[in-house]
Amino acid sequence: MSILEKYNRRVEVANSLLCVGLDSAFERIPEPYINHEYPLFTFNRWIIEQTHAYASAFKPNMAFYEARGDRGMRSLRMTLEYLQLHHPDILTICDAKRGDVPSTSEAYASAIFDWFGFDAVTLNPYLGKDALQPFLSREDKVCIILCRTSNPGSGELQDMLVNGQPLWQTVAHKVANEWNDKQNCMVVVGATYPDELKQVRQQIGDMTILLPGIGMQGGEVEQAVRAGVSDSGNGLIVNASRSIIFTDDPEAAARSLRDEINLYR
Amino acid sequence: MSILEKYNRRVEVANSLLCVGLDSAFERIPEPYINHEYPLFTFNRWIIEQTHAYASAFKPNMAFYEARGDRGMRSLRMTLEYLQLHHPDILTICDAKRGDVPSTSEAYASAIFDWFGFDAVTLNPYLGKDALQPFLSREDKVCIILCRTSNPGSGELQDMLVNGQPLWQTVAHKVANEWNDKQNCMVVVGATYPDELKQVRQQIGDMTILLPGIGMQGGEVEQAVRAGVSDSGNGLIVNASRSIIFTDDPEAAARSLRDEINLYR
Repeated sequence: MSILEKYNRRVEVANSLLCVGLDSAFERIPEPYINHEYPLFTFNRWIIEQTHAYASAFKPNMAFYEARGDRGMRSLRMTLEYLQLHHPDILTICDAKRGDVPSTSEAYASAIFDWFGFDAVTLNPYLGKDALQPFLSREDKVCIILCRTSNPGSGELQDMLVNGQPLWQTVAHKVANEWNDKQNCMVVVGATYPDELKQVRQQIGDMTILLPGIGMQGGEVEQAVRAGVSDSGNGLIVNASRSIIFTDDPEAAARSLRDEINLYR
Repeated sequence: MSILEKYNRRVEVANSLLCVGLDSAFERIPEPYINHEYPLFTFNRWIIEQTHAYASAFKPNMAFYEARGDRGMRSLRMTLEYLQLHHPDILTICDAKRGDVPSTSEAYASAIFDWFGFDAVTLNPYLGKDALQPFLSREDKVCIILCRTSNPGSGELQDMLVNGQPLWQTVAHKVANEWNDKQNCMVVVGATYPDELKQVRQQIGDMTILLPGIGMQGGEVEQAVRAGVSDSGNGLIVNASRSIIFTDDPEAAARSLRDEINLYR
């Protein structure tokens, strides 16, 4: 079973397009978890247990683990081991936005896919296809390429016109038509840009889109889901991080967002 | 003393523009070092002792440390502590090519500048200035932005014409004129693209350029140095990694490259 099939099956079983972003910033972790040896892991374990029934994917952002040094990295590895053991049917995405020259991308691919054991990784397209080849050639894994990111200033470069179309659209076209030899690519489009999202959906057929930016970043669920779903009402990974994990009741927050997303599929 | 002043002073004292790339891939580390608890650190310590007299900068690429998990991260931190203790006058660059939304870039900046203690970091411009602000606002540190990377396929996106000029040139212009509020920016241009390097130099005045791609990647020293130095014969950080650290005699390799670079300044 490919990773994409694993995700699609989970979407069906859990009736959910929700991805819970494990952006476990140490400074925001609640009291009961901070005095453990691996606070990020113990917090994640709690979040996973609270939210897994409503989640089809978990997406830790590497930055919050690196910020805690080697202990943080160990916490992330423990999180992956825990997910593989208890919830092997849920997609795991490493939000790392990597992109480096080929010999170095090889090392990153080894870190993310092999040492940590993630199913998927987010990648930055600026260096071109050859730079990402060590990721792209892993047909057992999934590569999720940034097209239009969710931050307010993402248009600064991404909106620049290249042969009459914005760079984000050029990247989406490349990913769909030139970088996807192994049928293992997806794209990132921020929920904060529903118009662009709609255009990407028209452009890439039923390819899966990772949609960050719901919740704290201000993306609206109805607009984003309507603009982003494929014809079959699937093909989306809708991520929310802080608005789930740093609430008093993560389970209720995850369930409520799962249900809200389903209203508009 | 700013980080830029630290680098320029070191260039003068060591009479060197050489940066030694600590791309310490575990698979290539020689026998005597691999049986230590922290093989990447013990290898780096040896390389540093062999080459420091000829180096004005050391640049580990994060990928090779992440590939070894938490032990790799600890090795990198130990390397930084060793450099701060024994060679505090040499610039330390984290080659990480990071770029993420603002709240996440904040965590990366904390990891790289504070937990590891690097002087400088390489950054990817694709997400725009607002995304990099947590790095750019650190006036005690240096931000080195990718313009034209050294990989063979870097032109795929970077050569695309935006308002009649290639994207790499647009990025160089932005960094020099819009992103450098704190006077703490540098740019990356691959030594494998001497024509582009010359144009960037004309465009950015005496701003410092990090020049990867010498050695194994095929960049030629004479062409690259002549194209890249500022009017005063400085303003360059010339990196070589594998062609120094994985030779039988790293000291000789570093000295020889330092001297060769100086022929063309």
